[in-house]
Amino acid sequence: MVNVNFKPSKEYVEKAFAAFDVLEGRKGRGNDFLGWMDLPSDTPASIVDGCCAIADEWRQKGVEVAVVIGIGGSYLGAKAALAALSHSFGMERRGIEVVFAGFNLSEEYHAELLDYISGKSVAVIVISKSGTTTEPAVAFRIIKEHVEGKYGKAEAASRIVAVTDKARGALKSLSDQEGYRTFVIPDDVGGRFSVLTPVGLLPIAVAGYDIRALLRGAASMQRICAERDARNPALLYAAARNELYDSGKKVEILVSYNPKLQYFGEWWKQLYGESEGKEGRGIFPASVNFTTDLHSMGQYIQEGERMLFETVISVEHAGRELTVCDDPQNLDGLNFLSGKHLEHCNRMAETGTRLAHEDGGVPNGRVTVERIDEFNLGELFFLFEKACGISAYMLGVNPFDQPGVEAYKKNMFALLGKPGYEAQAEAIRERLR
Amino acid sequence: MVNVNFKPSKEYVEKAFAAFDVLEGRKGRGNDFLGWMDLPSDTPASIVDGCCAIADEWRQKGVEVAVVIGIGGSYLGAKAALAALSHSFGMERRGIEVVFAGFNLSEEYHAELLDYISGKSVAVIVISKSGTTTEPAVAFRIIKEHVEGKYGKAEAASRIVAVTDKARGALKSLSDQEGYRTFVIPDDVGGRFSVLTPVGLLPIAVAGYDIRALLRGAASMQRICAERDARNPALLYAAARNELYDSGKKVEILVSYNPKLQYFGEWWKQLYGESEGKEGRGIFPASVNFTTDLHSMGQYIQEGERMLFETVISVEHAGRELTVCDDPQNLDGLNFLSGKHLEHCNRMAETGTRLAHEDGGVPNGRVTVERIDEFNLGELFFLFEKACGISAYMLGVNPFDQPGVEAYKKNMFALLGKPGYEAQAEAIRERLR
Repeated sequence: MVNVNFKPSKEYVEKAFAAFDVLEGRKGRGNDFLGWMDLPSDTPASIVDGCCAIADEWRQKGVEVAVVIGIGGSYLGAKAALAALSHSFGMERRGIEVVFAGFNLSEEYHAELLDYISGKSVAVIVISKSGTTTEPAVAFRIIKEHVEGKYGKAEAASRIVAVTDKARGALKSLSDQEGYRTFVIPDDVGGRFSVLTPVGLLPIAVAGYDIRALLRGAASMQRICAERDARNPALLYAAARNELYDSGKKVEILVSYNPKLQYFGEWWKQLYGESEGKEGRGIFPASVNFTTDLHSMGQYIQEGERMLFETVISVEHAGRELTVCDDPQNLDGLNFLSGKHLEHCNRMAETGTRLAHEDGGVPNGRVTVERIDEFNLGELFFLFEKACGISAYMLGVNPFDQPGVEAYKKNMFALLGKPGYEAQAEAIRERLR
Repeated sequence: MVNVNFKPSKEYVEKAFAAFDVLEGRKGRGNDFLGWMDLPSDTPASIVDGCCAIADEWRQKGVEVAVVIGIGGSYLGAKAALAALSHSFGMERRGIEVVFAGFNLSEEYHAELLDYISGKSVAVIVISKSGTTTEPAVAFRIIKEHVEGKYGKAEAASRIVAVTDKARGALKSLSDQEGYRTFVIPDDVGGRFSVLTPVGLLPIAVAGYDIRALLRGAASMQRICAERDARNPALLYAAARNELYDSGKKVEILVSYNPKLQYFGEWWKQLYGESEGKEGRGIFPASVNFTTDLHSMGQYIQEGERMLFETVISVEHAGRELTVCDDPQNLDGLNFLSGKHLEHCNRMAETGTRLAHEDGGVPNGRVTVERIDEFNLGELFFLFEKACGISAYMLGVNPFDQPGVEAYKKNMFALLGKPGYEAQAEAIRERLR
């Protein structure tokens, strides 16, 4: 069960209600991309069953590694969930090992990925709405060649599943032609809001985690966040962060005290950065993992430019048990911790830091999570999505577009000699001279 | 060979020269912590040989995993170097596998670390100036118990090496008593400047990498950066970033296009954040890995609040070869890339992004590196250290202290019942009511 402790002023709660009404009334900017709001309650059992069936089939077939190809919203949700749910050292797997590809253009990374999978039984999940995004498309060419070379075309087709558009696009066409099974990315769900579609569900199921519990958690938060109520956690978070932004706090740091939430921070950065960072506005999203980063970013946060606030994800129960051993000699002077749980020390570090940062002029609010499991992750995903819609409407921007993402791509295509970009290429060459 | 392309104004170059003179003259604030300036040239062969001897001995003994215990500057340098130099999937190891501990207080992490090492032949490097920093001291109690339980006290002592103060402190006392071999953290080198002491050298050597080449690279950069010359790259970087800061660019993003440099970004964030983030001042350091994060932070960087600038680490040559396969059907429309190296696409993405961000109001400078290897990493480490000293003096702060790091610790100790903190504990309990 997830709770929040943000305390925005009445004025900002009112503003948040207004944005909430625009979102719930589905009459704001970008309102053709609101499909994510109903995913938890409305995802048909057939989709969930379909994901689980692929997971079972591949497990029975002896698949050892599933390569998940995707970038941005087609990468970060599954990556965040798997990092949160998996053993830190890859032990005690519940399902198939998942590795990612196509989320960068690194030659070394992809060559080393081929090293890794070459002796193993492999399956592939390729995720792309269009099938033409450079990074995943290039990676898929490489991985497809590898898998077809290993198994032949027919067997390879049974080991490749595509998550893509329902009717159009290169990946859909290819899937139909090659006989890949497909899952649909709904038209009204943008990439960064897609973790509860098969984009996230399929990789998470293949890795052996309970996607039904994930959706149940999200559905529970969907109900809570639909209430037009001043205790609505999405509303409170949206109100608080806009109030802080308007008061000059231009950087928000998402803080966690569990290293498994590192990639949850990356997912959150995309969600908020891409939804709000436009028209010269928006909070700059950063993330840290404490206590690790108290020994790196801690000094800055305590005493640097006073333009920061923090949102702390506080996990109440650890998944394992380990206590501090006693040392009769006590040379390190830590016997006052003997017999205490490490996580107790971690939580006291959290409370101590919260107070210290408050004293240093860094306001902070908290999102409390019972434990890290599928249900609670589902709650967290939906809470932050809903709050993001409200928050971006409060800021006055369209939460669901990303016009700035194209700028570098046009230059890149011109530099790479893509047909149709000849004039732009000439202009760039001129500029680089 | 590392190069930079920063173009600060004459005024800021002059200011940088003034700060350079203070640093070189060793008369600025914190000048009892300048030992790092001479490490590349003055590190005696005996230290390097000593690190390599431990590596050889443990390899011959069949050690499979070395647990490196440390936090902050006693963690990030080695972590950055090993992430940069190692195979993405842990294959083709040159030396012993290194895992880290004591850089957080997560109960799950440390319990899972014990799962991982329990069936393996283990050695330990424990790094702490005092031996009383909570995270590494707690982890060392746990790992020491494990290793002594496994091998008995005598054999355990041959598998534990401490990197600590030359004469004082809990870890030094314990080492003398138990017969651990030790390496010295010099008195005049602070944690975040310590990667070229045994703090970094020993773990890097144990992992099988060439620390002589690392020091040679650093020594080459030491010579270059000692020149009182307007082409000095450390001076140019320090001048450029202060000029940008004074013009309102309060966030610096360190950009890399190679996923192996992710933790180099973390090392850099500590170096700059902890050196400059004080007295209500300093650039907020953030880092991204492109093209991955172009699909998450890209929108914000292109069009969000105009308070950003970027420093790009540009790697000229990839360590592996992989080209884009041709596809006669060309459904994805990417045949204009057929036969091209992935890294070529990556570099065009880099150039395209540089121009797009410039057009979007995000100035960017570049640090060019020939390839990722020990020599170039040595150059990079020293370049950023030297520039940091100059830059912080330009900003007007002491680069070598970190007064703000203690604030949370005092609260934490009070909350954990540390003897001597009773009054503070009562005050905190009152405040939390």
